Amino acid sequence: MTDRLDAQLAFVLELDKAKNVLRQSLLADGSRRENDAEHMWHVAVAAAVLAEHAAEPVDIGRVVQLLLVHDVVEIDAGDVLVYDEAARAAQEEREREAAERIYGLLPPDQADAFRGLWEEFEARETPESRYAAAIDRLQPMLLNLANRGEPWRRHGIGADRVRAVNAVIGLGAPAVWDRARAMLDGAVADGYLPEG
Amino acid sequence: MTDRLDAQLAFVLELDKAKNVLRQSLLADGSRRENDAEHMWHVAVAAAVLAEHAAEPVDIGRVVQLLLVHDVVEIDAGDVLVYDEAARAAQEEREREAAERIYGLLPPDQADAFRGLWEEFEARETPESRYAAAIDRLQPMLLNLANRGEPWRRHGIGADRVRAVNAVIGLGAPAVWDRARAMLDGAVADGYLPEG
Repeated sequence: MTDRLDAQLAFVLELDKAKNVLRQSLLADGSRRENDAEHMWHVAVAAAVLAEHAAEPVDIGRVVQLLLVHDVVEIDAGDVLVYDEAARAAQEEREREAAERIYGLLPPDQADAFRGLWEEFEARETPESRYAAAIDRLQPMLLNLANRGEPWRRHGIGADRVRAVNAVIGLGAPAVWDRARAMLDGAVADGYLPEG
Repeated sequence: MTDRLDAQLAFVLELDKAKNVLRQSLLADGSRRENDAEHMWHVAVAAAVLAEHAAEPVDIGRVVQLLLVHDVVEIDAGDVLVYDEAARAAQEEREREAAERIYGLLPPDQADAFRGLWEEFEARETPESRYAAAIDRLQPMLLNLANRGEPWRRHGIGADRVRAVNAVIGLGAPAVWDRARAMLDGAVADGYLPEG
């Protein structure tokens, strides 16, 4: 019993490292880059707030669980730009190894359950994972719009690529995607997201 | 419908400010202070991992919801040292006003529901809120132990006060508190938490 609790506490402590994994997105105020712990919190709350807009009926408790751990593998594998397709392919094997090591800190039954959450999120085969993926894409877009597109400018990304990569929002939350597209049009009109 | 979605998105964006609210705790590696967004994520996952140790049967989905928003009021009211009882009393009114403003950004039905989560957490009258409070206290203790007690030293806090303030862990998760007390004894023996 003590061994089991100690394994759980070791996993909880390991998670602290997600606070040092920096993402490409800046905070809304543009002051610094967001980290994975902040991102996983923000998307989990956003998913709860926006649940009524899910494309299909979802178990929101499950959605929140998926989002709370979906980027934990980046403790070992690091963050990769969503617009960099070559890097994303190479990332897959690193993330599988990371899942093995990090979830392997837990007692075996929980290691299976938590790795299962990550695999469900990645596979996009359930209504919960499709809605979670939509919110995971929406949140950095909201931040980028708030800081007038700094990450898009830094990486030379125009409106067509933003629309193409984020169309996944429409699969999980169509009304939210309609609104987000209008906001992207506004960013183009305001001159901080180049068309094309 | 667009008004409703816009209100929800405004609330989601407002939450970003929790990433700039610094807490007293340092990260496990001692490199910097933790912020509220990171803390809310960490306690939500920790609560899910440790759920089997709750003192009473709990709806873990509800526990996670409570923890995901329990410190949002600090966006306006700021963080107060858990060992500073005078400051904590003055904090209550500021937090009520903060809840009014921040949850008030949501559509009325959701404003009531989310403010209700915060009120439930604060009142400690449900099994879910008692277990959530235990994990909310455990997490900074784990970080403080990992960085060899820097925040305790900085504030001149000895083992007796750490045990007294954190005894609430025992109400929500007795087996976890037993283990945590043994870890505190270890910190005293190692010389980085003064007895008394």
